[in-house]
Amino acid sequence: MEKIILALPGNEALAEKLSTHTEIKTGRIELRTFPDGETLVRLHSSVENKKVFLICSLVQADTRSLPLYFLGRLCKDLGAWEVVLVAPYLGYMRQDMAFQTGEAVTTSYFAEFISGFVDRLITVDPHLHRFKQLSDIYSVPSRVVRSAPAIASWIKIHIPKPLVLGPDSESRQWVSEVASDAGASYEVLQKIRQGDRQVEIGLPDLNAYRGHTPVLVDDIISTGTTLSTAAGLLEVLGFEKPVCIGVHAVFSEGAYASLKKSYAGQIATVNTIAHESNRIDIAPLIATHL
Amino acid sequence: MEKIILALPGNEALAEKLSTHTEIKTGRIELRTFPDGETLVRLHSSVENKKVFLICSLVQADTRSLPLYFLGRLCKDLGAWEVVLVAPYLGYMRQDMAFQTGEAVTTSYFAEFISGFVDRLITVDPHLHRFKQLSDIYSVPSRVVRSAPAIASWIKIHIPKPLVLGPDSESRQWVSEVASDAGASYEVLQKIRQGDRQVEIGLPDLNAYRGHTPVLVDDIISTGTTLSTAAGLLEVLGFEKPVCIGVHAVFSEGAYASLKKSYAGQIATVNTIAHESNRIDIAPLIATHL
Repeated sequence: MEKIILALPGNEALAEKLSTHTEIKTGRIELRTFPDGETLVRLHSSVENKKVFLICSLVQADTRSLPLYFLGRLCKDLGAWEVVLVAPYLGYMRQDMAFQTGEAVTTSYFAEFISGFVDRLITVDPHLHRFKQLSDIYSVPSRVVRSAPAIASWIKIHIPKPLVLGPDSESRQWVSEVASDAGASYEVLQKIRQGDRQVEIGLPDLNAYRGHTPVLVDDIISTGTTLSTAAGLLEVLGFEKPVCIGVHAVFSEGAYASLKKSYAGQIATVNTIAHESNRIDIAPLIATHL
Repeated sequence: MEKIILALPGNEALAEKLSTHTEIKTGRIELRTFPDGETLVRLHSSVENKKVFLICSLVQADTRSLPLYFLGRLCKDLGAWEVVLVAPYLGYMRQDMAFQTGEAVTTSYFAEFISGFVDRLITVDPHLHRFKQLSDIYSVPSRVVRSAPAIASWIKIHIPKPLVLGPDSESRQWVSEVASDAGASYEVLQKIRQGDRQVEIGLPDLNAYRGHTPVLVDDIISTGTTLSTAAGLLEVLGFEKPVCIGVHAVFSEGAYASLKKSYAGQIATVNTIAHESNRIDIAPLIATHL
């Protein structure tokens, strides 16, 4: 089965890396905006009888989803044998219940939408919380790539005497895995979300870790409030500036600048979303699934 | 069957008019953007066992479609008896064939997408060209409201001695209907599109119409190039500034300002898309179908 990699705009760097690791060729797509705001989608490479990997991180999904849908449908119409969506960041995973009466559970609706035009899904560390696995919401087969090994080996190489810190109890298993692979200790903070942009954080007793470099790890960095709040507490306790690691560099507007201005030290993210803070390469781990 | 009208953002004015004409109550929806760019959709009114009219003009469809889809699915999940999309402007009607190899026929794909989450569709003068009727592309029942009677009566009231001018041969039938209802003469120009933003226009012999007020009518005003080019030709011929009428005030960025600066006279659009140029009210004609 011949294969081809197609990168949606913004995903070219990761696509090139995947191509290098797998020796699957990249094809060319064209997305052009008409004066009326509509998108022209054109394939410049043949997909006939091929297994097509569409690389598209689903951050800012409201604007990206329709062109992605058009491209998926087009590949099928032009004879693709299978369309596999590689969405290193999977959007709409956080509204996984109606927190108030009348709210849409967009996690489910978005999954239905995506399942309607791709044959399979590959993603990295989806934000699973109330849904325990992707197959509860995605009707197409999916595969989850875990970034923990990549993060752990980055910590091992770059951070002397690390103390890995998870933001909340939900992160315990994941954080313990990173710490164990990195040969490091770990602790978990108590996060209480107060609103879209406010969090309160409780710290465990960290006296045993004097002299360690704190390494905060979170799955999604959006406003950065969790990390900057935790960093501020570590400052009060007299720790050195914490290394801040995020899997998904979502970064809402101004968030990256704010985080840099806080007591945060080095900021390192995985390249599931292209961002200047990308330091940890997930391509080798995704590549094994293509 | 109880009914309810729900307006997506930007469609509130038309929704209120529809409510006034039909005595169907409007409900309240909430669309809020999270810091990460995702949309929260919430219904503040009960839709249970009701026929729901979602009012959403599909201009800038790339950003509006996903929230609309969420809302449609939510209405169904919350017990709506029927979800009717009232899209006074229907987007993605212009890419109705692959003009070059590998292009997506987004007209078809968009129709499939919409048909997937609404039960019926009501729209105003869709840009049907290569597809002859909506049922060729929309799998749900649809109804087309024609704006010609509203435009004709506006011309009759406001324009003395009108000469109705259509931009191209495709518009002949529609323009003749407007002219006939308005008790006016009409002619059709020859439009040759040279690219997204360039058109060439040929004029018929208009000598018989000296002293008339030219009234250019087009279905979609996007860049406004067709109307401003035609206006320029009328200036050369010594006609007074033409009244420019558009059904759908799409207006790409800067287009309205440019058109006003051209030889165009009064600009009047139908309120299928909310815009300051709206002068012609389509609400009474849509209302008869609710």
